[in-house]
Amino acid sequence: MNRYDIAIIGTGPAGVSAAITAKVRNKKILLFGSKKSSEKVCRAQEIQNYPGLPQISGEELAEQYQKQLDQLGITVTEERVSAVYAMGEYFAVQASGKMYEASTVILAAGVVQGRTFPGEKEFLGRGVSYCATCDAMLYRGKTAAVIGYTEEAQRESEFLAELAEKVYYLPMGKDEVHLPESIEIIREKPLEITGQDLVEYLKTDAEEYKVDGVFILRDSVSAEQLIPGLEIEEGHVKVNLQMETNIPGCFACGDVAGKPYQYVKAAGQGNVAALSAVNWLTRQKLKKQG
Amino acid sequence: MNRYDIAIIGTGPAGVSAAITAKVRNKKILLFGSKKSSEKVCRAQEIQNYPGLPQISGEELAEQYQKQLDQLGITVTEERVSAVYAMGEYFAVQASGKMYEASTVILAAGVVQGRTFPGEKEFLGRGVSYCATCDAMLYRGKTAAVIGYTEEAQRESEFLAELAEKVYYLPMGKDEVHLPESIEIIREKPLEITGQDLVEYLKTDAEEYKVDGVFILRDSVSAEQLIPGLEIEEGHVKVNLQMETNIPGCFACGDVAGKPYQYVKAAGQGNVAALSAVNWLTRQKLKKQG
Repeated sequence: MNRYDIAIIGTGPAGVSAAITAKVRNKKILLFGSKKSSEKVCRAQEIQNYPGLPQISGEELAEQYQKQLDQLGITVTEERVSAVYAMGEYFAVQASGKMYEASTVILAAGVVQGRTFPGEKEFLGRGVSYCATCDAMLYRGKTAAVIGYTEEAQRESEFLAELAEKVYYLPMGKDEVHLPESIEIIREKPLEITGQDLVEYLKTDAEEYKVDGVFILRDSVSAEQLIPGLEIEEGHVKVNLQMETNIPGCFACGDVAGKPYQYVKAAGQGNVAALSAVNWLTRQKLKKQG
Repeated sequence: MNRYDIAIIGTGPAGVSAAITAKVRNKKILLFGSKKSSEKVCRAQEIQNYPGLPQISGEELAEQYQKQLDQLGITVTEERVSAVYAMGEYFAVQASGKMYEASTVILAAGVVQGRTFPGEKEFLGRGVSYCATCDAMLYRGKTAAVIGYTEEAQRESEFLAELAEKVYYLPMGKDEVHLPESIEIIREKPLEITGQDLVEYLKTDAEEYKVDGVFILRDSVSAEQLIPGLEIEEGHVKVNLQMETNIPGCFACGDVAGKPYQYVKAAGQGNVAALSAVNWLTRQKLKKQG
């Protein structure tokens, strides 16, 4: 399989910055995320404290980022990463049902808005999933609920509905909902996922639904769910000043690595993470040469 | 005395970023440094990896910074800080012979190019000085040598020559030297400062000069010389991810706080340092209110 030097997850200021520096350093990179930079960047009305770009809007900053990515020939892979596995020599990155290989990983996925649901962590892999595209097969002829936060979640639900017998869709965001009639839209607040060994019920503030699986499709997955074994400290990925995590070859930067949640702080950390990854690749190469 | 909230030392990307964020947060700030941003910024031919500003020259980046400072009404105090003293409740900042008070200090002074001279640290305060404007009085009727790295060092030497009986000037930089005849220009390489209790000789690669004092006027003073008691680790100010140093209320960011030496990393850390200083001010205020 084609192995990349660095897989970067996230297209906010941290991920974009990491991609730019990695590319300038001639690394073979994969940049996962939305082409419109992260939603958080685009939605900012006015950013006052980004040095060098006085009073820029989030939309404009995202455009500047895109321009720079284009100039450097960096393309964004618009797939949602659902899991990253440390394989020793490399990382296996699962994105929208596909698998990629990279020697290092830079996690710049931002912070997950909102808490996890009771039962979410307990049933992960036993009925709870973060990727309908990956796991839809498992629900052929069965019943599944989708807790959907994004526009893309609706598209994933349509795919799921082609296989599952019954799909409930609980819209969580402000996006308009356009779904085929085969999907039942439930405008209730999800409260808890319950069951014995496997998921059996999704409880809402109004009802209890008998389901075989619950897909929770957020804009981003929490870091610890994304990369098993990643050390978390007070809700953020634990990093040092070089943006190293506890997993060798895995770096984190931006909001996911801690407060303050600021654009230029994220961009600065992305730059450091990229250079740390570059150094790591060099050291690995020297090691192999013996 | 007029007390500032935050004294920021340095006008490279770290200092400028800290100033912008502190000002946006309505703090009363003092920004020390050169108006032309730091020389290191201005001299960069092309910066490829500053997110949002594709292929910008150092000159242009410095202009953008200046524009942003102007828009926010931030003025640069063009004085060279020679010492910062932690007084418990506040910091005393000595700059070009004047004293300022600030509740917090952000050190963004970059790294000192070149090594210290043998004898420099040992005789600091006993004949070695970093500020002719401050200490010239002590050399009334005496002999002093100036190791000058900057244009400003020449102006300081002129002032010194008005008081001292004899001044030697050893030019270290590439600036042209324009000095009155009363100052003897020595185009030799300084090697060592020697003496018993006090400075007695300056040795060069050609001669040994009998002197009472040696002024070393670099573009910047090393962090440990600037702020007594500051913890240094492997040549850089020791900081954590919040840019806190070992001295409460004193923060550091940019090159002075460690590698990599990168523009956007410095800007990101400046932002974090400013917000940490803002938080610190808030906590102190709450403490006082009991």
